[in-house]
Amino acid sequence: MGRVTERRRVIRVRDGAVSARPDTLVAEEPLEIRLNGKPLAITMRTPGDDFALAAGFLVSEGVLGHRDELANIVYCAGATEDGSNTYNVVDVTLAPGVAVPDITLERNVYTTSSCGLCGKASLDAVRTTARWSLTEDGRDTADAADAAAVRIEPETLTALPDRLRAAQRVFDRTGGLHAAALFTPDGELLDVREDVGRHNAVDKLVGRAFQQGLLPLSGAVLLVSGRASFELAQKAVMAGIPVLAAVSAPSSLAVDLAAETGLTLVGFLRGTSMNVYAGEERIALRSAVDGA
Amino acid sequence: MGRVTERRRVIRVRDGAVSARPDTLVAEEPLEIRLNGKPLAITMRTPGDDFALAAGFLVSEGVLGHRDELANIVYCAGATEDGSNTYNVVDVTLAPGVAVPDITLERNVYTTSSCGLCGKASLDAVRTTARWSLTEDGRDTADAADAAAVRIEPETLTALPDRLRAAQRVFDRTGGLHAAALFTPDGELLDVREDVGRHNAVDKLVGRAFQQGLLPLSGAVLLVSGRASFELAQKAVMAGIPVLAAVSAPSSLAVDLAAETGLTLVGFLRGTSMNVYAGEERIALRSAVDGA
Repeated sequence: MGRVTERRRVIRVRDGAVSARPDTLVAEEPLEIRLNGKPLAITMRTPGDDFALAAGFLVSEGVLGHRDELANIVYCAGATEDGSNTYNVVDVTLAPGVAVPDITLERNVYTTSSCGLCGKASLDAVRTTARWSLTEDGRDTADAADAAAVRIEPETLTALPDRLRAAQRVFDRTGGLHAAALFTPDGELLDVREDVGRHNAVDKLVGRAFQQGLLPLSGAVLLVSGRASFELAQKAVMAGIPVLAAVSAPSSLAVDLAAETGLTLVGFLRGTSMNVYAGEERIALRSAVDGA
Repeated sequence: MGRVTERRRVIRVRDGAVSARPDTLVAEEPLEIRLNGKPLAITMRTPGDDFALAAGFLVSEGVLGHRDELANIVYCAGATEDGSNTYNVVDVTLAPGVAVPDITLERNVYTTSSCGLCGKASLDAVRTTARWSLTEDGRDTADAADAAAVRIEPETLTALPDRLRAAQRVFDRTGGLHAAALFTPDGELLDVREDVGRHNAVDKLVGRAFQQGLLPLSGAVLLVSGRASFELAQKAVMAGIPVLAAVSAPSSLAVDLAAETGLTLVGFLRGTSMNVYAGEERIALRSAVDGA
């Protein structure tokens, strides 16, 4: 974990005054994820929690869902010229009998051989790959009642960004990290991860929950420090998380995916305000919403 | 271009008051980039400037450098069941004789078959693939004198973020876009692009310059609205841009790549302040820097 930050010389300019000093930067290194020995993806990430990152990535891709589908994850060692381990290559071995999927060239997006790629196809791919339904009727686990019961006070939601920021240890030193956190519907912090890549922070959260046998995360709220893209909404859906809240704006396709899967999507969560783009039934809004 | 934004219903919560209204969101759709008919990459992007995005992506990958290496780019039509064009698949055809590269599964990162992936390998891959050198001695074009002459006043740099923000038209409506802009060393805005993906905004800028025969961009300053990651530094280097400035923090590997290639890297460009992480000789700092 010593590589989460690194020191570099920096020249600071402040109102014309120039000084040179050491600065703390967020570490960024490539991580190659191999599946049963074959290269699957490379992501630029902040070192640390690499096994969780790999597991979470595979949850997002629909490869993993239950802990017993995973045999093990190891750092791939010994193939460099000097035999050293870079700790930048992990190999994920699936349990016997678990099918190795045909995953395409770009992470998080399922491609087709047809020329008709469109947003709708992206939505369909997530819906057909998802292991759990976020809506009561489609739910196939014993947690159905719990999941349907997720209901959050607006005041609880608006308190989350400050709690996330308070839990961000590396950001304070570098200013260079995206953060993601899981909370209970009562606003209790369950876990927080930081990474130079926003997708990685969520993959690490989901991967740790997977490793602990906690999927689907049907009683959790996911908060991200930035925008809500399609891919982040996809990760929430694939992990069975019913509520995704973002400090900044969502994209159109993230909203469409939320509407289609029953995900509650909150954006612009700032101060005492928020925008609810889908799944408002999980938020205890006091005044009635007209049918606009 | 009508798809740059989309309208969705949103429930606004402001200090307990709830209202429903239409909201403008940044559009996000997948784009599949094919090279000579074969799928190469999929990126989630804001529609628009798709040919420039594809060209810029291929410049970043080292496939394209000179305009005459490109035969054409077209939207791939007619393969959907109803024969319609989704405008989400582009096919790039290289000019006769231009080698089709072996590009790996993940964009922007060159993988190796060995198990020794590391940050240094990423730096080496960019350095050996780059078409142009950012430093005077390595330069192989007639613009050598110009490039060496790039020198920027700190006050010019600190004025750029406001100019970028003023030029961001879509952000004002959606709050959901990353922006990137090219400036002259005197601070004149050359071009600005916005996209739901930060890499895409830079690819669109570089692709447009490529289409106009302007590479290498040896007299340009690239400003990005967020953080400076390895991949953004890579894109600057591959386009021959000597100065990359970011409003937020750089990563360790971005700083290392800048130091290795001669790229000037500025971070935390805010108000009258900035941090210079590499290539400070291009910035006209008034007071002397000690050797710390």
